[in-house]
Amino acid sequence: MVERYYLGVDGGGSKCKASIADAEGRVLGSAQSGPANPFHGVQQTLHSIESAARGALRNAGLPDSTLGDLVAGVGLAGVNLPSLYQVISEWPHPFAQLHLTTDLRIACLGAHQSDEGAVIVTGTGSCGFVRIGGEERLVGGCGFPYGDQGSGAWLGLEAVKSVLLASDELGPETQLTDLIAGLLEARGVAIVERLSGKPSSEYARLAPLVFAAAETNDPVALAIVQRGADYISAMARKLLIHKPLRLSMIGGLAERLEPWLDADVVGRLARPLGTPDAGALRFAVQQSGLSEGRVTYVPSDR
Amino acid sequence: MVERYYLGVDGGGSKCKASIADAEGRVLGSAQSGPANPFHGVQQTLHSIESAARGALRNAGLPDSTLGDLVAGVGLAGVNLPSLYQVISEWPHPFAQLHLTTDLRIACLGAHQSDEGAVIVTGTGSCGFVRIGGEERLVGGCGFPYGDQGSGAWLGLEAVKSVLLASDELGPETQLTDLIAGLLEARGVAIVERLSGKPSSEYARLAPLVFAAAETNDPVALAIVQRGADYISAMARKLLIHKPLRLSMIGGLAERLEPWLDADVVGRLARPLGTPDAGALRFAVQQSGLSEGRVTYVPSDR
Repeated sequence: MVERYYLGVDGGGSKCKASIADAEGRVLGSAQSGPANPFHGVQQTLHSIESAARGALRNAGLPDSTLGDLVAGVGLAGVNLPSLYQVISEWPHPFAQLHLTTDLRIACLGAHQSDEGAVIVTGTGSCGFVRIGGEERLVGGCGFPYGDQGSGAWLGLEAVKSVLLASDELGPETQLTDLIAGLLEARGVAIVERLSGKPSSEYARLAPLVFAAAETNDPVALAIVQRGADYISAMARKLLIHKPLRLSMIGGLAERLEPWLDADVVGRLARPLGTPDAGALRFAVQQSGLSEGRVTYVPSDR
Repeated sequence: MVERYYLGVDGGGSKCKASIADAEGRVLGSAQSGPANPFHGVQQTLHSIESAARGALRNAGLPDSTLGDLVAGVGLAGVNLPSLYQVISEWPHPFAQLHLTTDLRIACLGAHQSDEGAVIVTGTGSCGFVRIGGEERLVGGCGFPYGDQGSGAWLGLEAVKSVLLASDELGPETQLTDLIAGLLEARGVAIVERLSGKPSSEYARLAPLVFAAAETNDPVALAIVQRGADYISAMARKLLIHKPLRLSMIGGLAERLEPWLDADVVGRLARPLGTPDAGALRFAVQQSGLSEGRVTYVPSDR
């Protein structure tokens, strides 16, 4: 009998992280590859997953042929959309098993080292997730430019809108004009040329400028950050209705947003215990214990 | 000597209209083709211009070979961006002359039958334009999703944002939820699947629903429409600072927006005297009188 190895995959809009662990849960190696959000490209996503998995095998000193023995736990952004979940589920994957779930489920598993709890992810996008008594609920996460209030991309887009209004003298002047000109080397309508057709991660690059301007009390930036933070506070209260034992905020903007959240919400935030890729490994182990087939996890409806 | 014919082209995001007139200004024929906004595709734009021109020749009963004798006046959306203006200017076009300008300049020429005046265009996008004493000024028109407040696409996007907030119970309930479900056959996150990657014209399809809900006093729709109309009123005041003889509002949403504008602005609106394609013909005649070369018109800076 071959030794069983587990693969944990955390796939998102900018990168895909994979780790290999043995049956005792010891992490043997890990690797990173390109974007893995099927919303922005299914083929790219599948390629990134396989490439990160092969990289992690190499890093672990295991032969490439081990790929077919891996029990994979894969958490992906975007698969909360039923059509994308379906597409990825139908992938003739190269692993022994593939257990698919959302990036949120593995983030929650990682942050709480437990199957239950709540997380708010604030990075390029924003989303809330709670799992309790086997039931799940998503809040937000509808993506750019429809939703994702309080996320990096949302902060960036709101900043651009404000700068364009100011350039027409139809909105108040703001420090954001010079800050964005410094980063993008563009003013007024030229900003549109720089950003046209670009993915949300390009807008998220502007988010630190919005925080910087807000921290020096620029009224326009203050209003944007506070509006984003108020949405995240409201999202947190929606999640807390379900009485999760723990609520964590993770992602690239978590630290910068926290000071702007309402005090009652900040008082309920718990430090994340582990990363989403640790959660993906935990998911692989957990699901393979539940079934030996090529089963996939079916997420609950919103 | 061959007889001189003039071609007027009005190119926008959803269609391209062309008309042929003789040296006495009599319209001989016209035709319509596909999208001609270089912001969304330069090749498609050039193809649409040529195809509409050939169609107009056929409609006028003129041989296809007349194409090379035409003096073309072309007004295009998108060429207020310098890079796109440059790209179209370098087209080895099949006409005798091509005089290029913005869709706004020809809309203004058409609406006022004069080289000077001001227009607000509210259709899929929104933009303001004033030309006076040979100087031009653009207001807004930065495009979707950065600007274009009060436009069809903006109204549609704001409606989607409100419906998604309501579906998470993070915003007030609104009739827009059922109205959008009726049109898109989608609710909640499924709306995102329907609209993801779609051009702004798909969002503009939702604009009539926003007006319908506002007219029955749905508070969410009322707030969206009023916010859009307030922006257009502010834009109108910016244009009126330059003291144009006339200000007209044109485009697919002009009639529906007018009742929501401030009274001082409504009092200054003048009925448009002609269409943008009539303005494009006028532009062709005017520019060919100024020069016999393959000159192109260089728009003033913002």
